[in-house]
Amino acid sequence: MTDNATIAAIATAPGQGALAVIRVSGTDAFHILGKLFQPAGKRRSLDERPANSIVHGLLKFEQEIVDDVLLSLFRAPHSYTGEDVIEISCHGSVVIQKKILHVLVQSGIRLAKPGEFTMRAFLNGKLDLSQAEAVADLISSTSEASRKVAIQQMRGGFSQQIQMLRDRLLNFISLIELELDFSEEDVEFADRTQLRSLVQEIYDKLSNIAGTFEKGNAIKNGIPVAIVGEPNVGKSTLLNVLLNEEKAIVSDIPGTTRDAIEDTIHVGDLLFRFIDTAGIRETTDTIETIGIEKTFEKVKQASVILFMADALSTAESIRQKLDKLKDLVQEESSHIIVVMNKTDKLENALDEEKFAGLISGGKNKLFPVVGISAKKKQNIDQLTSLLAELYGMRQLVNEDTIITNARHYEALEKSRQAAQRVLEGLSTGIPGDLLAMDIREILHYFGQITGQITTDEILGNIFRNFCIGK
Amino acid sequence: MTDNATIAAIATAPGQGALAVIRVSGTDAFHILGKLFQPAGKRRSLDERPANSIVHGLLKFEQEIVDDVLLSLFRAPHSYTGEDVIEISCHGSVVIQKKILHVLVQSGIRLAKPGEFTMRAFLNGKLDLSQAEAVADLISSTSEASRKVAIQQMRGGFSQQIQMLRDRLLNFISLIELELDFSEEDVEFADRTQLRSLVQEIYDKLSNIAGTFEKGNAIKNGIPVAIVGEPNVGKSTLLNVLLNEEKAIVSDIPGTTRDAIEDTIHVGDLLFRFIDTAGIRETTDTIETIGIEKTFEKVKQASVILFMADALSTAESIRQKLDKLKDLVQEESSHIIVVMNKTDKLENALDEEKFAGLISGGKNKLFPVVGISAKKKQNIDQLTSLLAELYGMRQLVNEDTIITNARHYEALEKSRQAAQRVLEGLSTGIPGDLLAMDIREILHYFGQITGQITTDEILGNIFRNFCIGK
Repeated sequence: MTDNATIAAIATAPGQGALAVIRVSGTDAFHILGKLFQPAGKRRSLDERPANSIVHGLLKFEQEIVDDVLLSLFRAPHSYTGEDVIEISCHGSVVIQKKILHVLVQSGIRLAKPGEFTMRAFLNGKLDLSQAEAVADLISSTSEASRKVAIQQMRGGFSQQIQMLRDRLLNFISLIELELDFSEEDVEFADRTQLRSLVQEIYDKLSNIAGTFEKGNAIKNGIPVAIVGEPNVGKSTLLNVLLNEEKAIVSDIPGTTRDAIEDTIHVGDLLFRFIDTAGIRETTDTIETIGIEKTFEKVKQASVILFMADALSTAESIRQKLDKLKDLVQEESSHIIVVMNKTDKLENALDEEKFAGLISGGKNKLFPVVGISAKKKQNIDQLTSLLAELYGMRQLVNEDTIITNARHYEALEKSRQAAQRVLEGLSTGIPGDLLAMDIREILHYFGQITGQITTDEILGNIFRNFCIGK
Repeated sequence: MTDNATIAAIATAPGQGALAVIRVSGTDAFHILGKLFQPAGKRRSLDERPANSIVHGLLKFEQEIVDDVLLSLFRAPHSYTGEDVIEISCHGSVVIQKKILHVLVQSGIRLAKPGEFTMRAFLNGKLDLSQAEAVADLISSTSEASRKVAIQQMRGGFSQQIQMLRDRLLNFISLIELELDFSEEDVEFADRTQLRSLVQEIYDKLSNIAGTFEKGNAIKNGIPVAIVGEPNVGKSTLLNVLLNEEKAIVSDIPGTTRDAIEDTIHVGDLLFRFIDTAGIRETTDTIETIGIEKTFEKVKQASVILFMADALSTAESIRQKLDKLKDLVQEESSHIIVVMNKTDKLENALDEEKFAGLISGGKNKLFPVVGISAKKKQNIDQLTSLLAELYGMRQLVNEDTIITNARHYEALEKSRQAAQRVLEGLSTGIPGDLLAMDIREILHYFGQITGQITTDEILGNIFRNFCIGK
């Protein structure tokens, strides 16, 4: 997967900036840069300089000045990768960035593969595998909520929980394997009641953590929202109003241009992603009413459905349509908000609570009602507040662990299934060797999450998706 | 132009990278970051840590972890701005970059204006004005040649030359002003012969430096190239071939995507920029032949003209067209290359030297001839080699100073005019007070270049064009 070569890559965003950082890692980092670098002040060599220090000077190649740079010096094992690392901070022209990379390559340094720095950090024991994965998540986080989840994971919260369960289980498996050594004598070193209690605890814990995946996935990739409703009810107008507000919000800080993420809005800490919205905007008049197959697909993907109706509609007509809609969604995980549009055409303000009572029979909390005028941009704030409330972020901060990674989810599910077999085996009193096999399987999947058990293929899949320079 | 506030900005390229750097400068940098930062290891406060050191830890705001960061600590006056500076190296998500800026602003730091860090460096005497301008040029350099020119200027080569001339002239003006104090006695402290010799030297030097502007400007902004020729001679095909080769070259290093610079190619260290090429590509069949007004305009802007003709043309017909073309260009600064296209239709290879001899009468070195087939991509290398040779880069490296900045050019021209008046005045023996006025004017424009004499308006114009974060 990697080798002992000294590697380099541009670590900052592609393109022109005030400065750029090129990261170099490996045993030859100091030796090679020592030859290219001419310090501005005291002429101590790089080798003589302390770790975690910065030195200013010229990067030169074949007598020619490449750039005026700062070098940040890190020494193994106290660096990101656990190897000797030098970060070159140069002027941020693309020409200079490329030139420095060329000079490094000509001096015997290899270009890093995607994620190779972090892979080395993992292989050198600086991070476990789930922490390494969190680094990639953190870098690609596009909302405050996904940042929080990734920080939590990178700091090892999730790994620690898995590790603790693993340690406790390891104790039991050694006792059970001891039994197997003494199998002729029919002894039980491992207390079956305590084992059942521990495996039940593990099973419950795994169920809890795995249960956060859907939420975590929505947070990581954006919460999918569908706007549904009859033609000309104002779906495209609402979408444009929401997206335009977003544009105004995200561009308020100079220097942070937004990545080309289409059709997403930030509400509070969350990212909402509109499904198939291109269709909404381009073909307003051909959008099908509820019940037609295409909308059906859209609704199935959504975690939030904005059901739009004309403010002049009767409660009865909306209830009928909602009844059809409800059949399409899984109530437990999806939210429906009834958006009564074109309130500017009403003589009196819409009594939202009363209306909600009428359509839901007064007991259904799933269907909040909000009256808006998309065209006149009235009451849009109230709609976005409703969206934010659906996924209360205060809860998120206090929750221990939210998993966002399909690989972790799969490993958790498999270890949970193994735990279930252990519980069943304990009930039916299966022999210790079969019990041991299932417990070993739990431990195996735990090890896959943290990276204690891994393969080149798994590592390859994980780090291939990293960006270059990390 | 600036104030005493502590300022911050993202210094790396906009968008997502492995890491990003946020720069903070000002008297409160250590105090404010000291409150936000929690070091990972030994709990020394930021104030107790040495200058030019790096510290790892958590950036926290209101109990919440914002990111795991490295801080690079610089202390006044040994920093880029000459103030206390802290550079925050964070995970490169856009959300994190924005969040950190928000946290800094909420902690009392102001967002930096474009170029404000460099302006402070200038105001604190870390750089003179022409060096500060070179920083902006360096960051925006898009070719190896423009990088070299900017590095040279940033390192003070140009300023030093101006400064040396200024120092020598200051000596004379004090002697002349002494004469004015003793004007009743009609003495001459300043040796007129030496003064004439010095001012002549200054005049020649200024002429030389100002004379590099056209070349420097072409290097900085790309050397303007026009492709001219009759319809269907293959202009658009050639352009596409050149641009496509370029695309393949510039994208060979991962992580360095190219900025959206349209219709430019790098040849060797130089950037060539095609004039009005959109027109070439979109309307091949309506491109006028030489002599029509629009082509005339195009040719006047170009430093290099690729004159394209069909390889089957006779030398005589090409000579006639070239004669018309020659009238349009200023021979001294423009180069014409005769490109004989569609050589694939010839039975024998084109004898380029012989052909050049026929069309130019054997003595004209201005018109090299190259036979190509744009369609079959034959001999394109030879054409690009010819382009590179026109602006020999070896010469460039050895040349002392090349100016690229219109502001410098203007100041040099004005001081040269004043020097000319001094020389004329010395010839006609004008009084010392008039002489002193003109010498003062030379010094004034020298001071404008280095920034010893400046105004808020000049500074505003210069730094407004910087990027944020520099």
